[in-house]
Amino acid sequence: MTASPENSPAPAPGLVSLVGAGPGDPGLITVRGLERLQCADAVVHDEMISPELLARARADAALIPAGKRRGHHCMEQDAINALLAELARAGKRVCRLKTGDPFVFGRGGEEALFLAAAGIPFEVVPGVTAAVAVPGAAGIPVTHRGLAAVCTVVTGHGDPDSGGVDWEAVARAGGTVVVLMGLKHLARIAERLRRGGLAGGTPAAVI
Amino acid sequence: MTASPENSPAPAPGLVSLVGAGPGDPGLITVRGLERLQCADAVVHDEMISPELLARARADAALIPAGKRRGHHCMEQDAINALLAELARAGKRVCRLKTGDPFVFGRGGEEALFLAAAGIPFEVVPGVTAAVAVPGAAGIPVTHRGLAAVCTVVTGHGDPDSGGVDWEAVARAGGTVVVLMGLKHLARIAERLRRGGLAGGTPAAVI
Repeated sequence: MTASPENSPAPAPGLVSLVGAGPGDPGLITVRGLERLQCADAVVHDEMISPELLARARADAALIPAGKRRGHHCMEQDAINALLAELARAGKRVCRLKTGDPFVFGRGGEEALFLAAAGIPFEVVPGVTAAVAVPGAAGIPVTHRGLAAVCTVVTGHGDPDSGGVDWEAVARAGGTVVVLMGLKHLARIAERLRRGGLAGGTPAAVI
Repeated sequence: MTASPENSPAPAPGLVSLVGAGPGDPGLITVRGLERLQCADAVVHDEMISPELLARARADAALIPAGKRRGHHCMEQDAINALLAELARAGKRVCRLKTGDPFVFGRGGEEALFLAAAGIPFEVVPGVTAAVAVPGAAGIPVTHRGLAAVCTVVTGHGDPDSGGVDWEAVARAGGTVVVLMGLKHLARIAERLRRGGLAGGTPAAVI
């Protein structure tokens, strides 16, 4: 395929594009997301973005790792915000490349709020969220007619007992529950979901 | 950009690709989804797929509308399943192009089960779900650090009082609630969410 200038003209200098790269497979970024990556002067990317995808950036683009990997921050959120602003004010076309979708546990909302408050033009290019695509890749539809009319996506990152998630209520909402970043607290999350009424034999997958 | 044969070789004849087209904007299909569309012999598409996107199919591809629009089925699900099987058995590369993501209220699970039972090779190419991208386009992140650690996606299509959704429990799960196809039953859904504890002043958007 060729780029689609009819759909998305090249972004203006100084624009920050918050782009969701999708769940990991480089073929699962959106067409517009790839276009933004390919014409960016600077790419500020999460650590977990695949090298194949980063290789699609311009040869002379600045590639700047940000975000975190397994809890280790290589750059704090405030520093990322400041960097985006600095690059944009210098007239760069900035691609802020994030795993999954920027607005699903991606802190894209914080970056968007910061840029809006700073008066810096930005856009959001959504991505395929891992919350749907990862179960899907394992053959598990998150909704299914007659079985699951509800799907709840929840972060398991915080402490299950003080992290602000009412796990019993999540269980009672029914349907499919997708827990992201829940491996560390898996046993306690499962216990609380059972307290909320999920039977011990409820089908579950750890992916 | 050029097609990415290194990431996704052309599909074999007889393969059915269940492809999510994303939330509507033709730039928001994935790179792989567009590749599948572009090399398909037959495209079986939902009614709401944009004409700009369908124009990317091969000039000699068969374009077959399926699915439904505003409750009017132009083809029943059984007929869609049978058609996919027939095309695949005739050796066609089939792109089943669905709005959003195939596994988020897209009945992709039913098509996948049918194809698996029929012994027909298929793949799922996920898409950007409207459940995330549509609020996002309106500036509303479905999760936000410190505000929403949970996001529940639910169909409002069924009767709110007998459709199998426990709306009070959905309200109690907290965080963001995204109701798809809920316009018809909006008032009764809102009433049940309030009964579940959502304050009358809870911010809400109808998009």
